[in-house]
Amino acid sequence: MHSPFPSFTLDLPAWAAHELTQLPSHIQAVEDRMRAVLNFARLNTEHQSGGPFAAGVFERDSGKLIIIGVNRVLPLNCSSAHAEITALTLAQQMLGTYDLGGPEMPAHQLVVNWSPCAMCFGAVLWSGIRSLVIAGADQEMMDITGFDEGPLPENWREELRKRGISFEEGVLREEALDGFRAFTATNPEVYNGRQGD
Amino acid sequence: MHSPFPSFTLDLPAWAAHELTQLPSHIQAVEDRMRAVLNFARLNTEHQSGGPFAAGVFERDSGKLIIIGVNRVLPLNCSSAHAEITALTLAQQMLGTYDLGGPEMPAHQLVVNWSPCAMCFGAVLWSGIRSLVIAGADQEMMDITGFDEGPLPENWREELRKRGISFEEGVLREEALDGFRAFTATNPEVYNGRQGD
Repeated sequence: MHSPFPSFTLDLPAWAAHELTQLPSHIQAVEDRMRAVLNFARLNTEHQSGGPFAAGVFERDSGKLIIIGVNRVLPLNCSSAHAEITALTLAQQMLGTYDLGGPEMPAHQLVVNWSPCAMCFGAVLWSGIRSLVIAGADQEMMDITGFDEGPLPENWREELRKRGISFEEGVLREEALDGFRAFTATNPEVYNGRQGD
Repeated sequence: MHSPFPSFTLDLPAWAAHELTQLPSHIQAVEDRMRAVLNFARLNTEHQSGGPFAAGVFERDSGKLIIIGVNRVLPLNCSSAHAEITALTLAQQMLGTYDLGGPEMPAHQLVVNWSPCAMCFGAVLWSGIRSLVIAGADQEMMDITGFDEGPLPENWREELRKRGISFEEGVLREEALDGFRAFTATNPEVYNGRQGD
């Protein structure tokens, strides 16, 4: 019936390969981890290689950088290729595990330039990360960009903590919002799901 | 820093390529669509090629089969490779769009052998499908298998409908539960996220 048999390859834009080589192997301060993530989000806007979102996976305690992923929805024709899923998926490939919090693994942290959407919230739960750090979680990103985060469980912060994922928000919030303003200034296409028929 | 530069390829097990060629190009009745999905879920158990979940993408009105995907978490080391994400992602690749409900597209339907987890609920919203059909959404699947669906918004059914996604549940529920019992009888590994430290 199908020829060729379908597959999908998730990867990062070419510019990201170069940028990753420019970063130190370890980044200690959480603000500096976020700064690296914000830079990737801005570069994704500048290169028009996806939405203005980036997510970094680090070893929580050593600061070792595993990977920074970016949103790839439009260029890869994949509505699930949000920054968080890209970063977590590539990190799992690099480390050879579906569980970043498995036995014998150091604790991993995900650093993202805004709060998880309805899909990425669940992806975070299943990824095995032990720590989530975000720049903000209020309405302002959506007001600036028009992106819809979708419906989360009302107590989503508590749901993270119940599953052993520590949580910090508000890291470099203003810098993150500046990045969203820069995205909106490019008059971009903003893809959301259906808003009713 | 990284060599080789990471990427991830999402595809179906080899047996699925053969099985897809055995199916008719169009399947009219929703029960028959679910029957095909249940068969893929059972085959995924038999071949030990992932969890006992499958999801089919069809044209809602014509019944044209686009693809049936299966859970690939363990074999691909990817915690996001649930059946719904696999099916939606491969369908988007085949149709060349990140929005299965975009302009000029026929309405697409996703048929799944149980309710979406916390992640797949959001993935369904962003995929562009116009119709979701599931075999069940109650506790019994979790009781049989031990899989955790995670926290959904309390009014998740209404959230689907608000976004133009029609919803039907309870299609071949008992047959779906039989498939989960067959999975559990193999004494499988069941991966969930953290349940607290």
